[in-house]
Amino acid sequence: MAIVLDAMGSDDCPQPEIEAAIYAAKNLNESIILVGHKDIIREHVSESDFAGLPIEIVHAEDILEMGEKAVKSAQLKPNNSMAVGLRLVKEGKAEAFLTAGNTGAAMFNSLRELGRIRNVARPALTALFPTAKGFSVVIDIGANSDCRPEYLLQFAVMGSIYAEAMQKISKPKVGLLNNGEEPGKGNELMRTTYPLLESSKKINFIGNVEAKEVFAGKADVVVTDGFTGNIFLKTSEATAKMLTDILKEQLMPSIASGGDNSLAKNILSAVKSKMDPNAVGAAPLLGIDGLVFVGHGRSNSTALISAIKVVREALNVDLVGTVRQSIQEELA
Amino acid sequence: MAIVLDAMGSDDCPQPEIEAAIYAAKNLNESIILVGHKDIIREHVSESDFAGLPIEIVHAEDILEMGEKAVKSAQLKPNNSMAVGLRLVKEGKAEAFLTAGNTGAAMFNSLRELGRIRNVARPALTALFPTAKGFSVVIDIGANSDCRPEYLLQFAVMGSIYAEAMQKISKPKVGLLNNGEEPGKGNELMRTTYPLLESSKKINFIGNVEAKEVFAGKADVVVTDGFTGNIFLKTSEATAKMLTDILKEQLMPSIASGGDNSLAKNILSAVKSKMDPNAVGAAPLLGIDGLVFVGHGRSNSTALISAIKVVREALNVDLVGTVRQSIQEELA
Repeated sequence: MAIVLDAMGSDDCPQPEIEAAIYAAKNLNESIILVGHKDIIREHVSESDFAGLPIEIVHAEDILEMGEKAVKSAQLKPNNSMAVGLRLVKEGKAEAFLTAGNTGAAMFNSLRELGRIRNVARPALTALFPTAKGFSVVIDIGANSDCRPEYLLQFAVMGSIYAEAMQKISKPKVGLLNNGEEPGKGNELMRTTYPLLESSKKINFIGNVEAKEVFAGKADVVVTDGFTGNIFLKTSEATAKMLTDILKEQLMPSIASGGDNSLAKNILSAVKSKMDPNAVGAAPLLGIDGLVFVGHGRSNSTALISAIKVVREALNVDLVGTVRQSIQEELA
Repeated sequence: MAIVLDAMGSDDCPQPEIEAAIYAAKNLNESIILVGHKDIIREHVSESDFAGLPIEIVHAEDILEMGEKAVKSAQLKPNNSMAVGLRLVKEGKAEAFLTAGNTGAAMFNSLRELGRIRNVARPALTALFPTAKGFSVVIDIGANSDCRPEYLLQFAVMGSIYAEAMQKISKPKVGLLNNGEEPGKGNELMRTTYPLLESSKKINFIGNVEAKEVFAGKADVVVTDGFTGNIFLKTSEATAKMLTDILKEQLMPSIASGGDNSLAKNILSAVKSKMDPNAVGAAPLLGIDGLVFVGHGRSNSTALISAIKVVREALNVDLVGTVRQSIQEELA
């Protein structure tokens, strides 16, 4: 069974997608369906490139706009590459869908084409966040700006399944992102969510966590509403970028001098490896009734290949089936 | 007229406070009232230290607990050093109050002793946030976890006055911290706040700003609710700390080697100067009916001396009077 790869996803598409498809078909024993505008894909592929490989091109007439207009564009263009690709999953012609395109558009298209798992109130966006100990699953990072406590409880359940099935963490520790550690801290949403998480038998709740505890790796799953999660994610990215820019400015003369610049190089590579989106691959849209992964827009072919491996792992552990079962159990 | 300095404020109190008081009395022509437990202060001062200087010690019997217990402690201890110092301002025996103690406790004590400016719905905590262009005023950073749109409008007005009077920025640009730039982005609070800010004649609203625009210095005043502002502040601090730790780890061998470590030192000082709380001094509690400034807990005497200068500047420009007038005009 094939994995659908959105050929129109990454910032440099479709070249990284084509390279990743060829690698996965040759070396990972995967069948890949590349979905996108055929004229654009064919500009980058010669007849011989795919010869003998289980790679199929499926045409999508519509092309999504980039950035903030992507969701609106998806609403107006039902034959965008994501929609066409997701329909292949819906129709059972493929097992999973992977895109490095706009996350909001992926969520919109997924809801329209595949819908939610039964009893899931709101599907959520996840991110694997680098910490001192590895990675934490942050959920939701932007799908649901206005949340109710019950949504956050479901995010906790779905995030725990993800950490357990994919990150291989037994009884993952769940923290509620908050502005203080004590119970009773936070805004109304967090204060009312806390007792729900505390009394759930499906999760291992460790209480509130602040940003510094998230970075220290105290929680395997960090639960938050999509607005706060998005602020958290973008603030850490922006801070890291500001400091990296200062670093580069300081290191540039040393690198340009041509002398011994091993220190400068070590520093940059240590910081980069901590912040590298390519290391993570892709994150799932949890709660969607089908397997959908979204990678970073800056993904190159290496990142897409890791993402394909992650998708295969999610299929092997039946991530969607496990979420489906746990949500029913939580409600029972 | 004197400035009250909380002798029990900073992490290393009362030594930095005593040194700052002596400096300000000798070199800045200030009268300083040091408020705190007299036994503790006197352990650090000999008779001759204050000889001939306009420094007075006022005893405060109660001692606040640190950290998250500070606010509860302030509730139970009406004669803590902040409360005693603020009463001196209330009674007209001093002009302003400065502490490097717990911000929540400072807000609680200020509300109890001085109260709010008339028609101010909620006083707010501000921070001067380092950006590529200098500093931005972020308001609120933690006083009000649950906000209404009208509160955020008042934060915008008060933050603009602060930027104009203290940062000397004409028509300061006001941005709403959000998870996207387009109008209509954000949670319900941000979506309903946007049109209020847009239609206010007292501020120069430039629309939504994301973290990266805040760091780029796009807005002089960043308006947010206290929950989101606190998450924003703590996330940027935690990210900076994580990257600084990585940096130090990389630089340590070079510094320890004893050879040419100028590069390593330059890097650390460049990063440190960007994140140094001592550079900023202190931030006001805006909306309190009296002048109250809170400095960072890590403040040393240099930081407290800058803070005293900031307080004097706020007195010179009549910050509280200007806020009082603008809030009435906004409502008119």
